[in-house]
Amino acid sequence: MRVVGGPSSIKLAENISLELKAPLIKAQFKRFPDGEFYFRLLEDVEGEDILLVQSLPPPQDQHIVELIYMLETCRELEARSIIVYAPYLAYSRQDQRYLPGEAVSSKILAETIQRAGASELYTVDIHNLKVLNYYCIPAYNLTAAEEIIRYFLSKGVEKPLVIAPDDEEDALKRAEAAAKIAGTDYDWLEKKRDRYTGEIATAEKALNVSGRDVVIIDDIISTGGTAANAAKILKKQGARRVYVGVTHALLAENALERLKEAGIEEVVGTDSVPGPVSKITTAPIIARRLKSR
Amino acid sequence: MRVVGGPSSIKLAENISLELKAPLIKAQFKRFPDGEFYFRLLEDVEGEDILLVQSLPPPQDQHIVELIYMLETCRELEARSIIVYAPYLAYSRQDQRYLPGEAVSSKILAETIQRAGASELYTVDIHNLKVLNYYCIPAYNLTAAEEIIRYFLSKGVEKPLVIAPDDEEDALKRAEAAAKIAGTDYDWLEKKRDRYTGEIATAEKALNVSGRDVVIIDDIISTGGTAANAAKILKKQGARRVYVGVTHALLAENALERLKEAGIEEVVGTDSVPGPVSKITTAPIIARRLKSR
Repeated sequence: MRVVGGPSSIKLAENISLELKAPLIKAQFKRFPDGEFYFRLLEDVEGEDILLVQSLPPPQDQHIVELIYMLETCRELEARSIIVYAPYLAYSRQDQRYLPGEAVSSKILAETIQRAGASELYTVDIHNLKVLNYYCIPAYNLTAAEEIIRYFLSKGVEKPLVIAPDDEEDALKRAEAAAKIAGTDYDWLEKKRDRYTGEIATAEKALNVSGRDVVIIDDIISTGGTAANAAKILKKQGARRVYVGVTHALLAENALERLKEAGIEEVVGTDSVPGPVSKITTAPIIARRLKSR
Repeated sequence: MRVVGGPSSIKLAENISLELKAPLIKAQFKRFPDGEFYFRLLEDVEGEDILLVQSLPPPQDQHIVELIYMLETCRELEARSIIVYAPYLAYSRQDQRYLPGEAVSSKILAETIQRAGASELYTVDIHNLKVLNYYCIPAYNLTAAEEIIRYFLSKGVEKPLVIAPDDEEDALKRAEAAAKIAGTDYDWLEKKRDRYTGEIATAEKALNVSGRDVVIIDDIISTGGTAANAAKILKKQGARRVYVGVTHALLAENALERLKEAGIEEVVGTDSVPGPVSKITTAPIIARRLKSR
């Protein structure tokens, strides 16, 4: 297997190449002055199994077009297979036609990726597992929960209570997996979504947090509103220190300030969304999975 | 036939709807706070022949993803046919693999558009006609040369000499078509491209311009360097007033200032690239073509 890193995931591809002991294929990419993308493979891919690493955080559409161009080029140059590793899979919220005439964005992205030549897809902590059903090629969801809790343990967080920000199945699974690594327990908060405004509120719930370190394990933070509210509830109930570990730290609209103001000690994300808090690499997650096949 | 206008071409779609006397289908689109695109058709397209109007100027990749989403949605909702009108077709320069391993961008875009459900494609003054060979669906190039010269004639430009900025076949054809409408003559300049730096220089050439109005008819202006040099050559040879009519006014890097400094009276473009000089609509061009089928 050989690794090709796209513009959104250069460093991540290098890390995966090291973990897998699979050579990184040299590639060149740039944007022309008018904004058009240029891509060139500097090594041969004919007959090779390729792992194409390209996360799809904002600017999503640029990263999607880059992915299409890289996929089609690998296919035209006769790669034997192309596994796409996109730890952040954009357009995973619009997973069905809620209102007549709506574009089902996650389905369309699935079709676009597989038509462009992907043979297999891996993503991490996808917002909605249902989205993977739109892929005809094998498509898998991995989790960063273990890597996230390991980060906090290595930083001296003590016997943390792991908290899921809601009681959805995926969130509970992640919290459970993290608690298992930490050798501690987990609990969850409950959310209510206003079906008209779409706003989410976290309900007050009594938790056994008094005097304890708490790690909230979340899949995605955009505005940070939900995590900030969760932290406030936990602090109010006497939590000692509150940490937030999130797979996809999108962090729009001064989210970081908001989270700090809520009394959170540290917010950490993964390299699925490169940015100021992406201190955890997802490289071991995909590497372990590919090695175990 | 019914017309759907995409985010890059709302006004153009309205103009086409009026020209064709074909109803405009109401649609809703927005960008979520994280940048993801949302699209919804507010009227039924089942069994309809759809004209989907979406030019692809910068930001190209956003406009391409929007086009894919609109195409797939019209197809899923069982439109009978979908004609794409993209007066500016992005990625038309990388038309072959010049160096080993390069992405053939224009081919990949062609495949992406037709796989997303387009039944037919129309564009205007494409940079390279060869690109249309990559489409398996019928794909046609129209020209804005006549509409451009009509604009200048209506503004009082007198018996202009029409100038093609180079001697390529498409450029000469556009100049000829414009001169025919104006009832005047045309000539051309000659360019040399440095095959290593990619820089283009316009050669000095004696032209019969002394005391005359001149209209340079160009397909695309990016930095404006070529048109500015052409204008300087024409002014040096005694041209009275020099105008530039361009189909796709991309106008990067202070191009407008550069063109004004070269002594050009007015630069005008079409709505293929909405912007400060896009005063000419391409609506009659596509409408005439579709009516004559």
